[in-house]
Amino acid sequence: MTSHATIGYQTRQKFAEDVAREAGAIALDFFRRRETLVIETKKDPQDVVSIADRAVETLIRDRIAQAYPGDGMLGEEYGLAEGVSGFTWVIDPIDGTSPFVNGMPTWCVSIALLHQGEPVAGIIAAPCQDELFSAARDLGAQLNGAVLRLDASRSIRNAVTGIGANHHVAPHIVANVVEALLTQGGTFIRNGSGALMLAYVAAGRLVGYYEPYMHAWDCLAGYCLVREAGGWYLPFPTEGASLSKGAPVLAAAPGAIDDLRALTAL
Amino acid sequence: MTSHATIGYQTRQKFAEDVAREAGAIALDFFRRRETLVIETKKDPQDVVSIADRAVETLIRDRIAQAYPGDGMLGEEYGLAEGVSGFTWVIDPIDGTSPFVNGMPTWCVSIALLHQGEPVAGIIAAPCQDELFSAARDLGAQLNGAVLRLDASRSIRNAVTGIGANHHVAPHIVANVVEALLTQGGTFIRNGSGALMLAYVAAGRLVGYYEPYMHAWDCLAGYCLVREAGGWYLPFPTEGASLSKGAPVLAAAPGAIDDLRALTAL
Repeated sequence: MTSHATIGYQTRQKFAEDVAREAGAIALDFFRRRETLVIETKKDPQDVVSIADRAVETLIRDRIAQAYPGDGMLGEEYGLAEGVSGFTWVIDPIDGTSPFVNGMPTWCVSIALLHQGEPVAGIIAAPCQDELFSAARDLGAQLNGAVLRLDASRSIRNAVTGIGANHHVAPHIVANVVEALLTQGGTFIRNGSGALMLAYVAAGRLVGYYEPYMHAWDCLAGYCLVREAGGWYLPFPTEGASLSKGAPVLAAAPGAIDDLRALTAL
Repeated sequence: MTSHATIGYQTRQKFAEDVAREAGAIALDFFRRRETLVIETKKDPQDVVSIADRAVETLIRDRIAQAYPGDGMLGEEYGLAEGVSGFTWVIDPIDGTSPFVNGMPTWCVSIALLHQGEPVAGIIAAPCQDELFSAARDLGAQLNGAVLRLDASRSIRNAVTGIGANHHVAPHIVANVVEALLTQGGTFIRNGSGALMLAYVAAGRLVGYYEPYMHAWDCLAGYCLVREAGGWYLPFPTEGASLSKGAPVLAAAPGAIDDLRALTAL
């Protein structure tokens, strides 16, 4: 890695922190007005969050296009726009659709920066808790400016593991992992936002996170955070068309890697 | 029911709202200082939350003893004190121990009032979201003063179900419910606080909540909230010694009752 590239990560990281804060504030405004919006539109709650998703992703894409017109972009709502700089932004405007539309606070804005196929910056804003998680390659991870560093003494037996599920995945796969984790003395949460649970792994609140199938925009910012806090993640395919497809996701603090890999056969 | 008793519920409900707010503020202060407390005491994080649990329960018990010296009390930390008034308070000073010690915001203070074996008032304070859920028999349920009324069109297939697990329960029981719910087109969260997830049922954020085994202090406030918002709950044993024992917990919005009873065989 060149120092030039590191400077590129760091300036883009600070830029993305500002964008994530701005995007988070807009999303929070939609969240607080969600009842009114449903009544106004008389549509399914899912339509309301689509409005919020689109508005937030458009804002993020506009800000990136202004600041770094040569960078590529991949977002959940508007797909891939190729770039020329070697940098690609991977955006989930609102991760945790289900909590968001149902009025629960566990959703977030997730922005990752890819360089040569690797997540070199990751920013996750959780507006309901006023929390900003931010990391860049070799520059560490922070939560609201405080350094995050994982504790190697935490294991699946003395800490909580996050689990994800969605309708791309056969129910018995999720159920089997829940059963195996509980049988081994672990416990789990599922808060409805995979990106936020990955940020929680980086913050030491969870000791690991497993979801059998996720997209790049759900996991790459969280992966960068986990790595920079001293944890491990399962490599995610980022080359060419595979970037827009899904893959299994597993991240862990040092003391939970072996147990979670064995438990998930990953 | 006499109007005298209803007045007794209502005045105690308002009193309990004030106590829950005060208790929530103290718990939130412990929560924000949890890292410092761990470093200061050099003990397991579990000890810190025990300090918080004890301090918060002591405050609640002191306030009740001052205001209603004839009422009974049952708390998670300090057990049962019989009363003479026919009213018994059932207290969980911090429900969601695991999220609390690990730094996640999904914990709450839960205060229920029993009269003739029935939860006639239920107050749940979620300090991290500045939310106060409050209900009394025949007087409805509110969240921060706004009336809660469940939507009969929500089902396990178009809404989220809460699931609980703990080490009193065989892992396959939890896993089987997860699998059955996903197979039927549902989805689940587990945020680590059963009382808070029951409050979320009353608020329409979840369509139901199931945990194979809970104690009275975990569920009675939430049950009162759910009933007053127009939902249903599985009767919980409250007579004599059974009040201090555990039982299965199931609560649901109208459109999810049949599905969740079938799914859990309750």
